[in-house]
Amino acid sequence: MHSFQELVVKFNKGFDTNHFPSSPTSLYEPGEYFLGIGGKRIRPVLCLLGNELFNEIHEDAFHLSNAVELFHNFSLVHDDMMDEASLRRGKATVHTKYDINTALLVGDVMLIRAYEYLQKIQSAHLNKILQLFNTAAKEVCEGQQLDMDYSKKDMVTMEDYIHMITLKTSVLLAASLEMGAIVGGASTANCKHLYEFGKNIGIAFQVQDDYLDAFGDAALFGKEAGGDIKQNKKTFLLIHALEVANQDQKLALTALLKYNGADKVEKVLELFKACCIDTWAESLKAKYLHKAFEHLESIAVTSDRKKPLIELANYLMNRNQ
Amino acid sequence: MHSFQELVVKFNKGFDTNHFPSSPTSLYEPGEYFLGIGGKRIRPVLCLLGNELFNEIHEDAFHLSNAVELFHNFSLVHDDMMDEASLRRGKATVHTKYDINTALLVGDVMLIRAYEYLQKIQSAHLNKILQLFNTAAKEVCEGQQLDMDYSKKDMVTMEDYIHMITLKTSVLLAASLEMGAIVGGASTANCKHLYEFGKNIGIAFQVQDDYLDAFGDAALFGKEAGGDIKQNKKTFLLIHALEVANQDQKLALTALLKYNGADKVEKVLELFKACCIDTWAESLKAKYLHKAFEHLESIAVTSDRKKPLIELANYLMNRNQ
Repeated sequence: MHSFQELVVKFNKGFDTNHFPSSPTSLYEPGEYFLGIGGKRIRPVLCLLGNELFNEIHEDAFHLSNAVELFHNFSLVHDDMMDEASLRRGKATVHTKYDINTALLVGDVMLIRAYEYLQKIQSAHLNKILQLFNTAAKEVCEGQQLDMDYSKKDMVTMEDYIHMITLKTSVLLAASLEMGAIVGGASTANCKHLYEFGKNIGIAFQVQDDYLDAFGDAALFGKEAGGDIKQNKKTFLLIHALEVANQDQKLALTALLKYNGADKVEKVLELFKACCIDTWAESLKAKYLHKAFEHLESIAVTSDRKKPLIELANYLMNRNQ
Repeated sequence: MHSFQELVVKFNKGFDTNHFPSSPTSLYEPGEYFLGIGGKRIRPVLCLLGNELFNEIHEDAFHLSNAVELFHNFSLVHDDMMDEASLRRGKATVHTKYDINTALLVGDVMLIRAYEYLQKIQSAHLNKILQLFNTAAKEVCEGQQLDMDYSKKDMVTMEDYIHMITLKTSVLLAASLEMGAIVGGASTANCKHLYEFGKNIGIAFQVQDDYLDAFGDAALFGKEAGGDIKQNKKTFLLIHALEVANQDQKLALTALLKYNGADKVEKVLELFKACCIDTWAESLKAKYLHKAFEHLESIAVTSDRKKPLIELANYLMNRNQ
């Protein structure tokens, strides 16, 4: 058994290599660059955690982890293009350092490379894993499309937002765990509980992310505070505020969405607090965490095997407190 | 046994359906739109031809055909973005009809959908097919990257051009045939000959395409004649002309590359003819066709089974004469 942190080290040791041939360098050097700028490697480690919950780590779990990390990086390269983001993890994005067309192709070959890693998995596991992987992969694209669609709308419902976030963020966390569990020989019932654990942790994480962007300590959070508010980003907080605000608060909030003064963040936060959005967000996060842990509880293995997953949840949930 | 044309009809019958779920429509409707605007469906039919060269058509060959056509359309959607092409088969490209970000995601989900079709293939065939598919898929991306790289260079060698064309165009034709042959239970030796047949047919086709763009009858060719010349596109013809031209012709041709007068095409064609590029191109095409047919000859099945492949070659090679 390994701790969450030990598995991060273990994964990184294997992943720290070239993932592409050397030629053409104009295509593969940018790919290696992006894979080399780091990242928390949460998803591939989830594959290892999913495996080790049930069994010793099988070589297939490493192939799977590589595939998942390649897939995640494919989606980041293409998302950065769509978002016109110039920085990722403090480094230049692929389309900024190279160009748009290169970034497009780098993303494409990363996705293909992900499938090459999947193909190394023993055939006994392969079919189920491919099915889960393909479904999650499509859902991540759907989530990104919905996110873009919603950014053009005046407002979206809470249900729509949770649906989008689930697709864009949670399903890959959930599928990473479940695919790892399949490698570990888990039963279907255990696989499903683990998937739901991952999915709910993912939503709780997003609630926290939205909360910290508004109420967090900028220095600890590592992002400019109030970034979402400045951009009128539809978040758990804004959507819920518009749902629960009284008539006056609603008018004030709607007016603030069109306002760009220096005190915009401060004024929106005041309104959020008046609507008790901060305490509501805490309880919403707790609700999803509770759901996640109920599913973890239902997995039929001894408690000691679940420790690394609890470490992971704590790592994700307390990282900025 | 079916003729080439019968297989086109057979494939289209199965392919004429929705390939995506209905929601989110903002992602999947553009995908269905692009798949619906048609195309010659050469590559999926090659899968069926490869299968039927050795055996009755297996259901797996249709899954494979769908995968190959989805992959091809993924590459077209992304290539059109890179080339800033507004039309494809006379219809608006995805990024023109919708937007760049949608086109990016539509291409991505088409690639994922291709893998979903592959996954339906029986596991006995799956591993070998995935390996071939992944290799060809990466090579297509490499070819596209090299094509973009070369467009920024003053000139490229004939060897480099053939390498690029092979990756960008030929390997998918070759792999489609070989993957079909694997479904048909072909031996490794027969598979390799069939791959080489496809690869060489692909290069011959590109020689013809370059030739027709310069010397073809615009009305029959369906494209504006001399388009490549107007854009100074590096083609078999231009690369060879610069190789064989004498000092005076070389100076004249180099000057014409910087010239944009109305008679540019006419003047370049005169020079091409003076260098006998037209007859050279005919003989180059013949050389690759000969290579292709030598490999077809070497495939250990009775001659009558090879007829549909010869029909296909004739269709590709005489289509504009």
